[in-house]
Amino acid sequence: MADDTPVPLTPGSTIGILGGGQLGRMLATAAAELGFRIHVFVPDATSPASEVAAAHTRADYTDVEALKTFAAAVDVITYEFENVPAECAVLLAGLKPVRPGPLALDVAQDRVREKDFVRSLGIGTAPYAAAATADEARAAFKALGGKAAIVKTRRFGYDGKGQVRVTSADAAAEAVTQLATPCIVEGAIDFKGEISIVAARGIDGRIEAFDPVENHHKDGILHQTFAPSTISAGPGAEAWRIAGAILEALNYVGVIGVELFVMRDGSLLVNELAPRVHNSGHWTMDACNVSQFEQHIRAIAGWPLKPAVRFADCVMTNLIGPDVLNWKTYAAEPHAAIHLYGKRDARPGRKMGHVNRLYPLNGRP
Amino acid sequence: MADDTPVPLTPGSTIGILGGGQLGRMLATAAAELGFRIHVFVPDATSPASEVAAAHTRADYTDVEALKTFAAAVDVITYEFENVPAECAVLLAGLKPVRPGPLALDVAQDRVREKDFVRSLGIGTAPYAAAATADEARAAFKALGGKAAIVKTRRFGYDGKGQVRVTSADAAAEAVTQLATPCIVEGAIDFKGEISIVAARGIDGRIEAFDPVENHHKDGILHQTFAPSTISAGPGAEAWRIAGAILEALNYVGVIGVELFVMRDGSLLVNELAPRVHNSGHWTMDACNVSQFEQHIRAIAGWPLKPAVRFADCVMTNLIGPDVLNWKTYAAEPHAAIHLYGKRDARPGRKMGHVNRLYPLNGRP
Repeated sequence: MADDTPVPLTPGSTIGILGGGQLGRMLATAAAELGFRIHVFVPDATSPASEVAAAHTRADYTDVEALKTFAAAVDVITYEFENVPAECAVLLAGLKPVRPGPLALDVAQDRVREKDFVRSLGIGTAPYAAAATADEARAAFKALGGKAAIVKTRRFGYDGKGQVRVTSADAAAEAVTQLATPCIVEGAIDFKGEISIVAARGIDGRIEAFDPVENHHKDGILHQTFAPSTISAGPGAEAWRIAGAILEALNYVGVIGVELFVMRDGSLLVNELAPRVHNSGHWTMDACNVSQFEQHIRAIAGWPLKPAVRFADCVMTNLIGPDVLNWKTYAAEPHAAIHLYGKRDARPGRKMGHVNRLYPLNGRP
Repeated sequence: MADDTPVPLTPGSTIGILGGGQLGRMLATAAAELGFRIHVFVPDATSPASEVAAAHTRADYTDVEALKTFAAAVDVITYEFENVPAECAVLLAGLKPVRPGPLALDVAQDRVREKDFVRSLGIGTAPYAAAATADEARAAFKALGGKAAIVKTRRFGYDGKGQVRVTSADAAAEAVTQLATPCIVEGAIDFKGEISIVAARGIDGRIEAFDPVENHHKDGILHQTFAPSTISAGPGAEAWRIAGAILEALNYVGVIGVELFVMRDGSLLVNELAPRVHNSGHWTMDACNVSQFEQHIRAIAGWPLKPAVRFADCVMTNLIGPDVLNWKTYAAEPHAAIHLYGKRDARPGRKMGHVNRLYPLNGRP
């Protein structure tokens, strides 16, 4: 790759973002605070991110000419969602630095590849097997204990979409047939709770992590994040170790979200990787000295990371669909910070904003 | 005024900002976080604020047609500098709510009118007299004690521009002749230090103020702000009282900056009003639960103000002109937050960014 990009990237440089959702929007405003210009690449005519960006390319992720013009107009490229087509990432990476690099995308886009990678580092996951056909699904279900499993699409799942819980081999087979795409069958595990850790790796290899947090879901979508996690005192250091090993192995630059199951014995299994800023890191906007968004921009710009310090406890609540209609209530709470994404249509299941409620340090009720 | 604007303003509404500098930029990103669209009106082709705005009207402040089109496209209008032409503000206020209202602009645009207003509230200022001619300047200088005075243009001064310190009646006369515009002559006073208070008044009349801070200038430009002020413990409550009286008398909606002299006996005199967010309030971005920018947007949108809480001590340092070339040093400081305005040309005297250095609460060295 011909990379003439100065490191660190000079203020006034342009950062390209693939994707225009709320993560892109919050990345864009964080980048603006550091003096950068933002150029958003997104197929939509309007998007949460393009409304706060200096420039906007409206084109498909497969439009080679548009991608080349975009690459020529920016100094570094990042993305706000992991389902960027692989060809797109490879093409761009040949023209300008793409951070995190295509390896992270490649690993995170396929649930089987992701779990293979995690296990190759000696880190645990739920038991799993690939299943592209009904027969393979039946075999996988039996091999995984034959009691309960989750069938998931290998690719393009998010917010619980493309997932079916099954309790028989026939149901597993039917799920794979219905989903009509290569799947993974994951053995159901008996976990105590779900936590995540949002961590960053700088261009110099330095790693900074925010405190691990506890996540509660509703209808397959993240509902609340509790910072810090209080499931148990133990997993903190172990979560750090896991995130660090993953960041190193991917030679990663940027922020990553690592979702973890906390088992009954306190051990941790990796559930999923998100090679980007993560919904469970939104609390950092109001309770830390640096937000995950600024930390990501610092990393991809080759700036030094900030040591991440939490100065308050926080409960982050997503505003999903019509929840946002209660914005007046949240706006009036003295210790709540409200963040809205500028989306017009409050469709069910759509992430419209979030509220961070602050509590004294180590004093969360 | 035909005001159909709902109160509070619904997220997704458009806020119009007159002016495109760094204050507009920081207002725009704060507004985006609350879910608003931003439309900037500025004569320049590019500006710090237009780079983060959803829409940009490039036109002069005297372009009636452009102002009408702008007003039709937005739900509420605010400004980031006080030298908006009066006709512009009056025209817009007939079309859409302008907050703060034209009265605040009218008072703050003229140093004589401003001091008359402040004194009408029983609040002290330095002694002053208007002087449009050399003869009036001589008479004013003598009437003000005949030792030392500052001659300032009545209008359009900022960052020490349009100010001359004089120590004789002839010099005062010459200054007025040179400045070639109606002036004010202010008697020099022996003050201990300069503080300011940034306060906000909501549409419901509620007032919230940030802690008073101490300001140090260099070459007539704000250099550092120390939060909180430690000049003396006394002025806090009095500064609050003064800001509150001014906000009430102006029936003000939005954030105001009130610059004050602390006299040897601890009493306070008003130096200047800024009917907008203020450079001495930039520390709130990193050391408070709400920034002055969000507080201003809340006020003009008719949202409830947030009770302003400082959770750290802070020293804000402006990056003026070539100071910004040291950005790498600031970016690497673990307890500093760097804010850059995206301006390309680091001309001497130009505000390019600022750094907020945080210290434990009440523990600033």
